[in-house]
Amino acid sequence: MQQNIVISLGGNALGTKTQTLREMADQLAESIVDLTEEGYRPLLCHGNGPQVGALQNAFGTKKHINGLEAIELADSVAMTQSYMGYQLQNALETAFHRRGLPHAVSTVVTRVRVNPDDPRFLRPTKPVGPFYTEEEAALLQKQGKNMKEDAGRGWREVVASPEPVEILEMESIRLLARQDVVVIAGGGGGIPVWEEEGRIVSVNAVIDKDFVSALLAESAQCERLIILTGVDYVYRGFLRGEPEKITHMTVKEARKYMEDGEFAEGSMLPKMTAAIRFAASAPGRSTLITSVDKLREGLRGEIGTIIVSEE
Amino acid sequence: MQQNIVISLGGNALGTKTQTLREMADQLAESIVDLTEEGYRPLLCHGNGPQVGALQNAFGTKKHINGLEAIELADSVAMTQSYMGYQLQNALETAFHRRGLPHAVSTVVTRVRVNPDDPRFLRPTKPVGPFYTEEEAALLQKQGKNMKEDAGRGWREVVASPEPVEILEMESIRLLARQDVVVIAGGGGGIPVWEEEGRIVSVNAVIDKDFVSALLAESAQCERLIILTGVDYVYRGFLRGEPEKITHMTVKEARKYMEDGEFAEGSMLPKMTAAIRFAASAPGRSTLITSVDKLREGLRGEIGTIIVSEE
Repeated sequence: MQQNIVISLGGNALGTKTQTLREMADQLAESIVDLTEEGYRPLLCHGNGPQVGALQNAFGTKKHINGLEAIELADSVAMTQSYMGYQLQNALETAFHRRGLPHAVSTVVTRVRVNPDDPRFLRPTKPVGPFYTEEEAALLQKQGKNMKEDAGRGWREVVASPEPVEILEMESIRLLARQDVVVIAGGGGGIPVWEEEGRIVSVNAVIDKDFVSALLAESAQCERLIILTGVDYVYRGFLRGEPEKITHMTVKEARKYMEDGEFAEGSMLPKMTAAIRFAASAPGRSTLITSVDKLREGLRGEIGTIIVSEE
Repeated sequence: MQQNIVISLGGNALGTKTQTLREMADQLAESIVDLTEEGYRPLLCHGNGPQVGALQNAFGTKKHINGLEAIELADSVAMTQSYMGYQLQNALETAFHRRGLPHAVSTVVTRVRVNPDDPRFLRPTKPVGPFYTEEEAALLQKQGKNMKEDAGRGWREVVASPEPVEILEMESIRLLARQDVVVIAGGGGGIPVWEEEGRIVSVNAVIDKDFVSALLAESAQCERLIILTGVDYVYRGFLRGEPEKITHMTVKEARKYMEDGEFAEGSMLPKMTAAIRFAASAPGRSTLITSVDKLREGLRGEIGTIIVSEE
């Protein structure tokens, strides 16, 4: 019996100044093929931080490019899904083929429903797009944008990061996974949408891709969520100046550490929140957090931090 | 028994200076819902001419945006697939919901295999991206690009438009269509790929979206391909100054008209080539060519040009 497994890939891990998206995808592909050989059916969800930032900067302040309509943040998120998705597909199918294991890999463009009443919309915090001067920022603020000064570097728009409520393409994702297609979905946290006067419309916000990965793993009835990031382990004790790696924790322990402020806001805290949410969603579920190049060892239980639902 | 049907949507029809992609998608959505009510399972393939042009211009000459890798033409094609696909999804699902016919709509990022030995690679003709000065063009030519002077407006890169050989995502598309998911695939003619030293890589080319629609219709065992464009009918007799609309033609008649030079190169000729290819691929198959806003009448046989396999 094959087991669905969701792998959440950090956006910074996919394409940096020193390594291209293609190189990174090739490196990752081998571990993903290992996974399928061990009986897992992987569902991939990737971040898009550097990529969506680059697109927003390229479109810049003149968003009405070439007489076409405005390219909104949600459109840029959509663009990174196919741009990054097809490159992951190329790398994965090549790796499957080399091992004599032909496997279809598909990218499903993914919209994620958010709630207009989500309190996070009241305090947008996520900076997006290019830097503006104070005058430009004042004008944009009048036009309804939330603008914030960014550590002396200029003004940027800030948007909310609402909770994902529902993955609209879940039926398609399930149908494909059931037929052993490796599915790439929820890229960049998904395209945020809601209903306005009975019509589905996109929303000017960004969703945390680890939260969407957790929702994807729940919806696909997975037993395991893997969050791949820049470090091999989750640490505690940074506050006391005595960093100590954690190899195993229960949801209860993890929540305690979180209350104690053991995890850094904006980096490990959202990952731990997603990890706990999934592990706590049903008995027998667990989340593994480790680095991109330790996926194999992590699966064998040799490296990484495991968060389990119970003792 | 539901019948698969492929609808090829002109890129210029989806978002112009006077009508946004969203407005156009809403208008189209009603006709697509009609189709499903009449027992068809639509597969949509859209063009991306204005959109991919706008992206290429936005990325401009400095393709290494923000320290990330170069955005190639194939990447821009990929971006338009998700950007246009999710907007079509929003419009379609809204229209289905209004009629009380909930229907899943999914965009499958689509790669299309092309042949490195395709003779079309020897004479690239399709202009893409921004205009350059003569000096810039000379430099790009040295870097391996094909540059051509464009009617006194400056220099542009020209790429080949190879034949589509295989839709790599066909298995996923079939699985979804079989479960009554409305699938959006092959946008912008698909992302062209081939194998290089055993690895799947993207190719600097653009594929004609009507050719891909014909291949999609063949691969999905459709009986009908619909090419939606800017005119209600295909005409002949323009050369004689006596334009005459055609309501019905056999593949044999269509080929004769084509040999006689009845169809304009760069506009109706490629559409007719795709129309004939599909209609000739098996008995009982036919292609309908009409305008976007006449889809309903076209389906009832009241308006449009039909190309049938035999008498």
